[in-house]
Amino acid sequence: MAVYTHVPAEEIDAFLTRYDAGRLVSAKGIAEGVENSNYLLETTGADGSGHRYILTLYEKRVDEADLPFFMDLLDHLGARGCLVPRFIADREGRRLQQLSGRPACLIEFLTGISVTEPTPGQARAAGVALGELHKAAQGFAGERRNALDVAGWHALAAKCGGDFDRIQPGLAARVVEELAFLDAHWPADLPRSVIHADLFPDNVLMLGEEVTGLIDFYFSCTDIRAYDLAVTHSAWCFSNDGATWYGARGAAIGAGYAQAHGLSEAERAAFPTLCRGAALRFLLTRAYDWINTPADALVTRKDPLAYLRRLDFYASADTSALLGQ
Amino acid sequence: MAVYTHVPAEEIDAFLTRYDAGRLVSAKGIAEGVENSNYLLETTGADGSGHRYILTLYEKRVDEADLPFFMDLLDHLGARGCLVPRFIADREGRRLQQLSGRPACLIEFLTGISVTEPTPGQARAAGVALGELHKAAQGFAGERRNALDVAGWHALAAKCGGDFDRIQPGLAARVVEELAFLDAHWPADLPRSVIHADLFPDNVLMLGEEVTGLIDFYFSCTDIRAYDLAVTHSAWCFSNDGATWYGARGAAIGAGYAQAHGLSEAERAAFPTLCRGAALRFLLTRAYDWINTPADALVTRKDPLAYLRRLDFYASADTSALLGQ
Repeated sequence: MAVYTHVPAEEIDAFLTRYDAGRLVSAKGIAEGVENSNYLLETTGADGSGHRYILTLYEKRVDEADLPFFMDLLDHLGARGCLVPRFIADREGRRLQQLSGRPACLIEFLTGISVTEPTPGQARAAGVALGELHKAAQGFAGERRNALDVAGWHALAAKCGGDFDRIQPGLAARVVEELAFLDAHWPADLPRSVIHADLFPDNVLMLGEEVTGLIDFYFSCTDIRAYDLAVTHSAWCFSNDGATWYGARGAAIGAGYAQAHGLSEAERAAFPTLCRGAALRFLLTRAYDWINTPADALVTRKDPLAYLRRLDFYASADTSALLGQ
Repeated sequence: MAVYTHVPAEEIDAFLTRYDAGRLVSAKGIAEGVENSNYLLETTGADGSGHRYILTLYEKRVDEADLPFFMDLLDHLGARGCLVPRFIADREGRRLQQLSGRPACLIEFLTGISVTEPTPGQARAAGVALGELHKAAQGFAGERRNALDVAGWHALAAKCGGDFDRIQPGLAARVVEELAFLDAHWPADLPRSVIHADLFPDNVLMLGEEVTGLIDFYFSCTDIRAYDLAVTHSAWCFSNDGATWYGARGAAIGAGYAQAHGLSEAERAAFPTLCRGAALRFLLTRAYDWINTPADALVTRKDPLAYLRRLDFYASADTSALLGQ
């Protein structure tokens, strides 16, 4: 959520000459996305009409070896009508570049704003967009392991160890217990595909109740398809602190997804378990960051307990309550 | 250089309905300027053609009571042809608003990029723009005390005290000595006016060698006019670390300023002293921030010694060397 690598404007201008993108007329570092450096660029445009682009420099959190997967995925999805930002190729067809010593890409800019308090209509549109993304992902040949799958949760929990109880007494035992439940109940044979895996409201651009873009695919991976709906559900249907559950949003996301893609009986049956997994995943990454970020650091630590509250809720809810009929 | 106050997009959209500015279609937090929160907004525009604005929320470093001075100044300068961003009034004529508990303003967006390694042509254009700003400032009735004047430097030096020597042994004595020199030699009767007081390359937007905007007037105040040229000189004519002096840039800024405004013999005679003051001013604020920012904080501390090197240079240079003939 900051600009980590400062790129002189002259270097950005020179970088753009590799592309049919016009000359640079504005460059602003923007506070967006995972730990990358992002600039919003404006150029005269190839046709002189003015264009905007996102310039992304990849910092340590994104593995350069994964970038071709993300690029090919967005090409695949974009070609099938999904509103995703395309990686732009230079005149020689290269999409991946180096700039200021970092892997760097020029990416399509999409308009739209990210809502903070979704209306049911907006939640429904997000459900539709996720279903359409899953349909469009069919036939995509690329694969990427989910580093934050059940095995990844065990590894992360082991790293936090006794420090969980510094966040809240009893949390370590609760995590052990929940991991045991998920080991025993995690569904083995639900359909898998490429999933977004991080479709928070931040990553959905909208105008009114219309989705104009899905962004930030840097967690996308191959995993249980309905788990993506569970992640989205956990991100969209609660107050930030996890204390309030908004049933109308859940029903709307469920209806939107069912309309655009459909959910099988097996997926519906496993849905509360998938939601418990989604809540634990964000509880664990937030707890890890919490434990490893000094309290006086200038980055905002996100409260892990906001996801413990979601976990508590999911542990006592059935599919009809979560997604409507 | 970060977004301190996060404003939900829905609130920005609602905020914009007070203005004839169209509907919000994009909002990106940008990493710019002094310690304010800034968003780059795009709207449909009053005429549907698309417009961009800067939304600024003022954090603790800017005093709300100073905002009318800045607003009136930019109106005055803009009306006289200076390329400065105007504060935009809502339908009821109000320029100062409240948003997310902060004083907030909607401000004109200007295109252009900030250069990092100015060419002599760009340095000349900056000198011209500063001279034109000083001409346009004539007749502006507003006044604002420079908190970072000679008295302010004494106060800041006293706060740093013995900690100077943690930056570099001997620095405390050097500061005392320089303050004594400036007390004895600071010019008393040079022309004063409103000055920008912080015209770094960051605050000058350019396309090629043409200035398209002067921004970030939050240090502007009433002080010796030629001191503004000295600040600009110290910011534009050295490598970042202060170790390399670029004489061609200095001559170009001098020629540009002389062409657009002119410099009297008294101003030329005092110029090395004014430059020593400018170098000390940035040395002191950087030293204060250095001493009061933990080494492991995530903000970048700017090196105070980069301005000690400039100070050393100015202490041994004459006006002809600094500004050309």
